[in-house]
Amino acid sequence: MVLVIPQKYSFSNFRLESGANLPLVDIVYETYGTLSRAKDNVVIVCHALTGSAHAAGYHSPQEKMPGWWDPLIGPGKVLDTNRFFIICLNILGSCYGSTGPASPHPDDGTPYAMRFPVITIRDMVRAHFQVIKHLGIEKIRLVIGGSLGGMQALEWALLYPDMVENLICIAAPARLYPQAIAFNEVGRQAIMSDPEWRQGNYYPGKGPVNGLAIARMLGTITYRSDLSMNLRFGRKSAPLPPNGYYSFDQKFEVETYLHYHGQALVQRFDANSYLYLTKAMDYHDISFNRGKYEEIFADIKAKTLVIGIDTDILFPTYQQQEIVKNMVKYYRPAYYREITSPHGHDAFLIEYKQLGKIINEFIAEVAP
Amino acid sequence: MVLVIPQKYSFSNFRLESGANLPLVDIVYETYGTLSRAKDNVVIVCHALTGSAHAAGYHSPQEKMPGWWDPLIGPGKVLDTNRFFIICLNILGSCYGSTGPASPHPDDGTPYAMRFPVITIRDMVRAHFQVIKHLGIEKIRLVIGGSLGGMQALEWALLYPDMVENLICIAAPARLYPQAIAFNEVGRQAIMSDPEWRQGNYYPGKGPVNGLAIARMLGTITYRSDLSMNLRFGRKSAPLPPNGYYSFDQKFEVETYLHYHGQALVQRFDANSYLYLTKAMDYHDISFNRGKYEEIFADIKAKTLVIGIDTDILFPTYQQQEIVKNMVKYYRPAYYREITSPHGHDAFLIEYKQLGKIINEFIAEVAP
Repeated sequence: MVLVIPQKYSFSNFRLESGANLPLVDIVYETYGTLSRAKDNVVIVCHALTGSAHAAGYHSPQEKMPGWWDPLIGPGKVLDTNRFFIICLNILGSCYGSTGPASPHPDDGTPYAMRFPVITIRDMVRAHFQVIKHLGIEKIRLVIGGSLGGMQALEWALLYPDMVENLICIAAPARLYPQAIAFNEVGRQAIMSDPEWRQGNYYPGKGPVNGLAIARMLGTITYRSDLSMNLRFGRKSAPLPPNGYYSFDQKFEVETYLHYHGQALVQRFDANSYLYLTKAMDYHDISFNRGKYEEIFADIKAKTLVIGIDTDILFPTYQQQEIVKNMVKYYRPAYYREITSPHGHDAFLIEYKQLGKIINEFIAEVAP
Repeated sequence: MVLVIPQKYSFSNFRLESGANLPLVDIVYETYGTLSRAKDNVVIVCHALTGSAHAAGYHSPQEKMPGWWDPLIGPGKVLDTNRFFIICLNILGSCYGSTGPASPHPDDGTPYAMRFPVITIRDMVRAHFQVIKHLGIEKIRLVIGGSLGGMQALEWALLYPDMVENLICIAAPARLYPQAIAFNEVGRQAIMSDPEWRQGNYYPGKGPVNGLAIARMLGTITYRSDLSMNLRFGRKSAPLPPNGYYSFDQKFEVETYLHYHGQALVQRFDANSYLYLTKAMDYHDISFNRGKYEEIFADIKAKTLVIGIDTDILFPTYQQQEIVKNMVKYYRPAYYREITSPHGHDAFLIEYKQLGKIINEFIAEVAP
């Protein structure tokens, strides 16, 4: 059991892409492995929407589950802590220690709530860069992430092209397409229509738990696939309510599964963070304020591996393939691999055997 | 301009599939064309989730839009009223004149609300059969419907195999698969979590308009496709709010489109009906209480045309193809055709040229 201790770095007057200013920013992060003397063995792991800096190991011997990507990170694992110094940082706007809408506003010490400024993927990455700079790191061997983490990885490569040597982007697009924006907006509306949301001012109460649960139920559909639900649930009924099968309370197993995931998120995530992070996702477009979409890929210098998942309905594979297609057009070193899985988008948190093999091969090639 | 007058037939003591009893049932319906002396030119058109009996023509010269399938129904059209006597009936549980949760409970004259019994697709069809019987009709030349209407069409063929000669089932499955159940449940939760729902007792108030709008926004995503949204909206921003692009109130065009559809439904549909009709959809399984799924298709005697839509994400084409595959296995006369469209599920309300051609060819073959 590898024990890890979260760390925190704070800095002030952080100017956002919007022009707004955050007087104080905390970033919580974890590291695994040892930074080499030459500081040339750094891997940054970027987490997804409701993830945290706790990517691997345990915080205490009592902790039931290890970090969210533990199967890939550790001694002798794919992201080998005997070789690499791995850093995972909680994103700006989240609720796992880094500054977000639940953090105290410096003016009055009460939570920002909706006074928190709109943030972007670039803001998240630029905030993390402050930590990397603070650690004296000038070269990043590899940036890797899935979903929202993949969007950050792309921005790392574009914001710091001379710093990032290799990039692995999993199940993420280079810009959000309207269907994904649409799903996000339905989730946000569920939260904001919940009267317990109170325009965001629900702290320290439970907040819009019904709305957040509904948003997560919908999210869960998009993280899975038609196929995975057919295989796992089919038309199986959940245990019948007292008034039997033809009761309005009767549920199919797939429904109780969604409710379970909705309730689980409510226990651990802040609704306002969900609003800000989905909004940041909607704004994601690597070409925004930079130029023509297809041409921006010419600016990615990192050796790039893009991984799609064949059943992903949230960010379908064409969105990953076009990254490679556009990079190759500009003679950039970009490669596409696909995971075959019934599990849909979430396969990047499930299919460790395939994922491990693909990442291993890439690392053997670019960082032997 | 063809003017039509809705009609109503009422009957009492209707026993539902669940065993529950409806003391009084109203069914509103419209007819187009003339019933032949031999009563052998009947076509039943089945409407979808939020549709009505108003399939064609106008109720008055002032009405802005004709019935929902008017491009297909009329003199010289695909469903030719010079030849056929076409009937469209509002389904049980709906809110366009047929008995549903907003109808008065016979015990106290106030709306049923959630006292309304759970209904099934079979109940809808059996209720409509009462009207057909009342009209003295013993043979149905063709039953046709899309989406929830297609589910009814399948049940027509199974409940009354000696009556239904031909069947056209468009963009509908023979049983609901879990992803569709999941989408329905998220919509229902949005409605039932809205405090204005009041356990269904919101009449005569506006009711859970926020929840119903959210349910419809989600529905709208599933009725369209990734491709159609890319073509129509891309990442275009809606007109910016006063505080600019980086405001939490900024919306992309796809979002205002969803809001428009949410608000439009709220103006015309009853939230409790939405609950009961989506629940009926979830229960849809032509094999339920009848036998093994694959084998039930042997009981469909009607000549059957099944039409899928290549971009349908709500009821993907494999769900239509398996109807034909299973029927053919039992030497039933079943044929599959596919509509090519960016528009997803809603293509059956859009792609009239393709749909008309496919239906025309089938009718020419089976009812020349």
